[in-house]
Amino acid sequence: MEKEEKKEVDISLKELSSRLQDFAMERDWEQYHSPRNLLLAMVCEVGELSEIFMWRGEVQKGLPNWEEADKEHLGEELSDVLLYLIQLSDMCGIDLGDAATKKIVKNAVKYPPKKN
Amino acid sequence: MEKEEKKEVDISLKELSSRLQDFAMERDWEQYHSPRNLLLAMVCEVGELSEIFMWRGEVQKGLPNWEEADKEHLGEELSDVLLYLIQLSDMCGIDLGDAATKKIVKNAVKYPPKKN
Amino acid sequence: MEKEEKKEVDISLKELSSRLQDFAMERDWEQYHSPRNLLLAMVCEVGELSEIFMWRGEVQKGLPNWEEADKEHLGEELSDVLLYLIQLSDMCGIDLGDAATKKIVKNAVKYPPKKN
Amino acid sequence: MEKEEKKEVDISLKELSSRLQDFAMERDWEQYHSPRNLLLAMVCEVGELSEIFMWRGEVQKGLPNWEEADKEHLGEELSDVLLYLIQLSDMCGIDLGDAATKKIVKNAVKYPPKKN
Repeated sequence: MEKEEKKEVDISLKELSSRLQDFAMERDWEQYHSPRNLLLAMVCEVGELSEIFMWRGEVQKGLPNWEEADKEHLGEELSDVLLYLIQLSDMCGIDLGDAATKKIVKNAVKYPPKKN
Repeated sequence: MEKEEKKEVDISLKELSSRLQDFAMERDWEQYHSPRNLLLAMVCEVGELSEIFMWRGEVQKGLPNWEEADKEHLGEELSDVLLYLIQLSDMCGIDLGDAATKKIVKNAVKYPPKKN
Repeated sequence: MEKEEKKEVDISLKELSSRLQDFAMERDWEQYHSPRNLLLAMVCEVGELSEIFMWRGEVQKGLPNWEEADKEHLGEELSDVLLYLIQLSDMCGIDLGDAATKKIVKNAVKYPPKKN
Repeated sequence: MEKEEKKEVDISLKELSSRLQDFAMERDWEQYHSPRNLLLAMVCEVGELSEIFMWRGEVQKGLPNWEEADKEHLGEELSDVLLYLIQLSDMCGIDLGDAATKKIVKNAVKYPPKKN
């Protein structure tokens, strides 16, 4: 029971990427994973994510008053977007963690922090 | 020089999340980061990502014949989607790495691997 | 029978808009139709549209070899995007037909036709 | 001057479709208009539309307090989504006006109006 509740403390993008590659290989799914196929699959998941938010009007941070089942569903849709995004990056030969790290640095130069 | 070329070997989602929180706080941007604002920002970035692929017809894995500048641009757009996805998850109180790990396990049950 | 097969020869955006307004009013749904709700509903439908195309690789014009049921499904998803787009325009007070007509003219100036 | 201000009273989807076909032909652009290219172009425009709404929090019907320039920009982005949607339908051999009319009828059966 304790183990079931244990969270992945700090999973890396590379670790997720590695699990997804194994997953696809074990099912012989690499054949479908062309860049534009994966991009459209991600767009599809962004749609499912939007469906959760579409009739709610503005939503407060932390999702107060959301039912637990809705939060779990949300976690799954956020994950689906992430998992296709990682696979798309992999199929394009882009190191997503490295690119994201650089983008934060680039943004920091573009938008300097406010002075106190 | 060696250091400049060094890649983030294995950055975690939590580390990216932490850097993004600092980034927003230093610029007083948390006020804009409601869940639906961040979702629409992510949709916007998915659009910019699609723009890179839209007139190319089918694209091969590894992006043969793409120019280096286009690959770099692609890395930035993939990153922008990721960075808003992480911030959206954070604002919703969802542990994205944990949710994604569980989703892979759930998918593995739903789609059993092919027998040899 | 002849009448059942008769197609709407040439329906206008205003006529569709009018039918959608009646539809919403008869169901008391106007309360949900804020601009951002409708935008997210449209993003959701774009996702469903993408789902039809996502694992197919490149698709030829006219959809040769597609089954009739898939074409019908496609027509429905294209329609869903259109219907939310019209409602979003209406809720924003934008005359979509007029705006689209002007946009074609603007594009014609921006991209002059090829000389023979 | 009076004529310049005249609005397209009631433009049909077929008329827009016809103008777009002429537009593409005059520029030799049909070669780029495969279904998935047009779909990704539409996703790109949905992103640009979302950009207008992303940092605003909830937006009221009729866009009170929006500047005229922002409304015009919005009209253009709504139009861009429509124009690619029409072209995508055409390239797929789908009569969008007919499909949309049928979808409204189908929805009316699925969601019967409220009784008084």
